[in-house]
Amino acid sequence: MRAVCLLSGGMDSSTLAYVARDRGYGVLALHLNYGQRTEARELAAAREVARALGAVEFLPIPVEHLRVFGASSLTDPSIPVADHDPSAAGLPGTYVPFRNGNLLAIATSYAEARGADAIFIGVQALDYAGYPDCRPAFIRAFQRAIDLGTADGTSIRLEAPFAGLSKEEILRIGLGLGVPYDLTWSCYRAGDRACGTCDSCHYRLEAFRALGLDDPIPYREGA
Amino acid sequence: MRAVCLLSGGMDSSTLAYVARDRGYGVLALHLNYGQRTEARELAAAREVARALGAVEFLPIPVEHLRVFGASSLTDPSIPVADHDPSAAGLPGTYVPFRNGNLLAIATSYAEARGADAIFIGVQALDYAGYPDCRPAFIRAFQRAIDLGTADGTSIRLEAPFAGLSKEEILRIGLGLGVPYDLTWSCYRAGDRACGTCDSCHYRLEAFRALGLDDPIPYREGA
Repeated sequence: MRAVCLLSGGMDSSTLAYVARDRGYGVLALHLNYGQRTEARELAAAREVARALGAVEFLPIPVEHLRVFGASSLTDPSIPVADHDPSAAGLPGTYVPFRNGNLLAIATSYAEARGADAIFIGVQALDYAGYPDCRPAFIRAFQRAIDLGTADGTSIRLEAPFAGLSKEEILRIGLGLGVPYDLTWSCYRAGDRACGTCDSCHYRLEAFRALGLDDPIPYREGA
Repeated sequence: MRAVCLLSGGMDSSTLAYVARDRGYGVLALHLNYGQRTEARELAAAREVARALGAVEFLPIPVEHLRVFGASSLTDPSIPVADHDPSAAGLPGTYVPFRNGNLLAIATSYAEARGADAIFIGVQALDYAGYPDCRPAFIRAFQRAIDLGTADGTSIRLEAPFAGLSKEEILRIGLGLGVPYDLTWSCYRAGDRACGTCDSCHYRLEAFRALGLDDPIPYREGA
């Protein structure tokens, strides 16, 4: 039994790969480089996490088109990454148009070509309600596209076990499974140390604080 | 009003781009190189067709992962392309796992980033009934994934005007719109001239013959 796990190298996707392993799947770790500004750091994190959990395969794939299309602060260096703002509403500037549709299409081709049984994606709808492609309804719609768009006899389950969980709940699960959070990288900004103030750092730090723990990765001074 | 048109450079997709233009859309021609063995010829054809119809933009994009995953005679040079066989049933060897799911995900990102109103895809279900990702039910499922997975307020119509048409009907439409078929390329096999015997050549030649016309592209001797 095998599962393609979308592994960015961040806190959620690293926990996800451990969940898939815990459920008895051999992990086909798929890391996609779509031109996000922190890719070098993310790739290293994903590779180390895949090695730590004993993935069957670690496959990094370049996805050039999302960077070419732009329209996101994650992929366009001319658009700055905003700090977390609790009063912000609507679509975050870090939204990459239909990113998860692309990640899932790639994962589906990989799963079908390898005869895998499932795809795991670490979308989390609570903190990322502004991202349309993180919502459970989108995941359900994509499951139907997989069912109808792959060869007859193919059965690939799309698993999004964190969709309804808080970041704190995800962290608690990961700590129970021994996820090496010191190897992971979540920050949206490039740098040797995580910035501590972007949305991604904000939610990560909040989760560690809620459990009364220190995050083991280094942050910039003052963060 | 703008539309992303998936333009491989073949007979169907070239006709499709002319249909979109005829419906009043400015054409954003998207050509995807997914490692298919005839890519050099297809790219040249797509570029010339886009120029001929006056596309607003012609964007070729490399899609490396479908070649990396393999499992198709179109993308794996070690698997030969079969001749057309009227008695063949099931999945053709040219099937690329979830190819159209990937093409549509890329087109959706492009359309959302550019604020386009529609995506045109030239799937044709009659001759290609063996390809799951050419069926109308898959197209409908993907429309729902687009509606749920793009930003609120985004509206992108997925148009597959050839889904229920025969190749002959598509050709008749294209001739009426002045599609320059001499610029197009349909053959699955690499070569200076089309082979005349693969599935794609077979259906193309059959359509021209049904209308009592000669196909203007060169074929290998004996084809």
